[in-house]
Amino acid sequence: MKMGTIYGVGLGPGDPDLMSVRADRLLRNAKHVAYFRKPGRSGQARKIVNGMIPEGAVEFPMEYPVTTEIPVTDPRYNELLAAFYEDCTRHLKALSERGEDVVVLCEGDPFFYGSFMHLYSRLRQDAPVEVVPAITGMSGAWTATGDPITWGDDVLTVLVGTLPEDTLAERMALTDALVVMKIGRNIDKVKRALKTAGLYDRAWIVEYAQMPNQTVTKLSEACEKITPYFSIIVVHGQGRRP
Amino acid sequence: MKMGTIYGVGLGPGDPDLMSVRADRLLRNAKHVAYFRKPGRSGQARKIVNGMIPEGAVEFPMEYPVTTEIPVTDPRYNELLAAFYEDCTRHLKALSERGEDVVVLCEGDPFFYGSFMHLYSRLRQDAPVEVVPAITGMSGAWTATGDPITWGDDVLTVLVGTLPEDTLAERMALTDALVVMKIGRNIDKVKRALKTAGLYDRAWIVEYAQMPNQTVTKLSEACEKITPYFSIIVVHGQGRRP
Ligand SMILES: C[S@@+](CC[C@H](N)C(=O)[O-])C[C@H]1O[C@@H](n2cnc3c(N)ncnc32)[C@H](O)[C@@H]1O
Ligand SMILES: C[S@@+](CC[C@H](N)C(=O)[O-])C[C@H]1O[C@@H](n2cnc3c(N)ncnc32)[C@H](O)[C@@H]1O
Repeated sequence: MKMGTIYGVGLGPGDPDLMSVRADRLLRNAKHVAYFRKPGRSGQARKIVNGMIPEGAVEFPMEYPVTTEIPVTDPRYNELLAAFYEDCTRHLKALSERGEDVVVLCEGDPFFYGSFMHLYSRLRQDAPVEVVPAITGMSGAWTATGDPITWGDDVLTVLVGTLPEDTLAERMALTDALVVMKIGRNIDKVKRALKTAGLYDRAWIVEYAQMPNQTVTKLSEACEKITPYFSIIVVHGQGRRP
Repeated sequence: MKMGTIYGVGLGPGDPDLMSVRADRLLRNAKHVAYFRKPGRSGQARKIVNGMIPEGAVEFPMEYPVTTEIPVTDPRYNELLAAFYEDCTRHLKALSERGEDVVVLCEGDPFFYGSFMHLYSRLRQDAPVEVVPAITGMSGAWTATGDPITWGDDVLTVLVGTLPEDTLAERMALTDALVVMKIGRNIDKVKRALKTAGLYDRAWIVEYAQMPNQTVTKLSEACEKITPYFSIIVVHGQGRRP
């Protein structure tokens, strides 16, 4: 029997109108739809495709075992996550072996800091896997600010808020344009690093880019409370322009 | 009379199936379609939408006045280009004032090193302008390599081949994952910088990502001749993964 294909489908930043034509078609014809979510939550990716998945499609929510209880540096964190990804992989592989295609929902672009990569690296030897690229969250965010991110020879650096403060500040100081992802509870550290690097006053924070609840705020004017998981900091390049 | 809207529409890396649903709809209903091209060429962006634009749509090719004759550092380069962008802007503004919507075709994402930005900055005060984000060429390129670009805490740096060799090498040495755009005739300089930074053996070059003539090659195995304008170098991050 022909094995089914597992599609890692990038959904883009969140507006269904910004999905690719291919993603749209795969979703509207899906028989099996898998997605990550935190326990007790509906899941950001699943929310984006509300109303698009055919009635009768079988859903497979993959619930992260750890979120914040165990520090990332604890070896148990990696062990728990690895076991979780193995479990998900087994389930997807079994579906593929039964000849079923599966659409795995991915926020933004699957190969850009995406959870799907952990399934992909485990599946690719044993099952047909296809990745559908998508608009990244950061493209959604800089478009929302209404200003281009890079001009001419500008260097763009993408950092994650989980890095140590001195690394953040060093890298920030060397770039023309900047994107910071995975901010959440790292916001105060990221702000201090931006100040050290002299970029704080040019920084914008975009929450829920391209979603109905999108906000775009100068970081220096953002009230202390605005730092959900789904936010991106943007500093625009100021390069050469005729 | 209500002014027409000028849409800067990102087309993504080149496969029409990877355009956003919104871009697809705007194109198929377009009455006016503008795009950049080099004199005597059909234009990469225009090629991507072949067969999608309605019959009878009015096309407005915007032909770059300079390409390679004048060095970028010569002040005349900027003057000529500025005059060119002013001209294009005048034409688009006149259409908008007559109540016409215009779709401007953009390769990749419009706000990421795109030529449209030079029209946008001139038009935004005087006419309604909307930007439709898109999949970047680099997302198309790393997806084509079949390996994720960034894991865990990886830093991603995006450089352009037009930078000086020592700047390239310095920035390359400090990053985990790397993208180099605008390679063309800068290829030898970029290769030397990659060697200095110790990244040469991990580098891939992707030509015409997500187009029918796509090639994906280890840079160290690429024959001397492969360096068209439309290529991107990718070095994958190797960060933390459970
Ligand atoms: C695990 S990463 C996934 C990135 C995704 N694959 C992409 O291409 O954007 C999660 C982070 O992406 C960022 N993000 C993704 N989409 C976003 C959006 N629409 N608005 C704001 N932040 C977003 C946030 O910084 C979040 O912490
Ligand atoms: C003026 S920049 C435009 C970038 C575009 N706005 C984007 O989002 O990718 C032109 C450069 O983009 C890169 N590029 C864009 N699309 C590409 C593709 N499909 N394949 C290879 N390179 C591409 C090449 O490096 C080229 O020199």
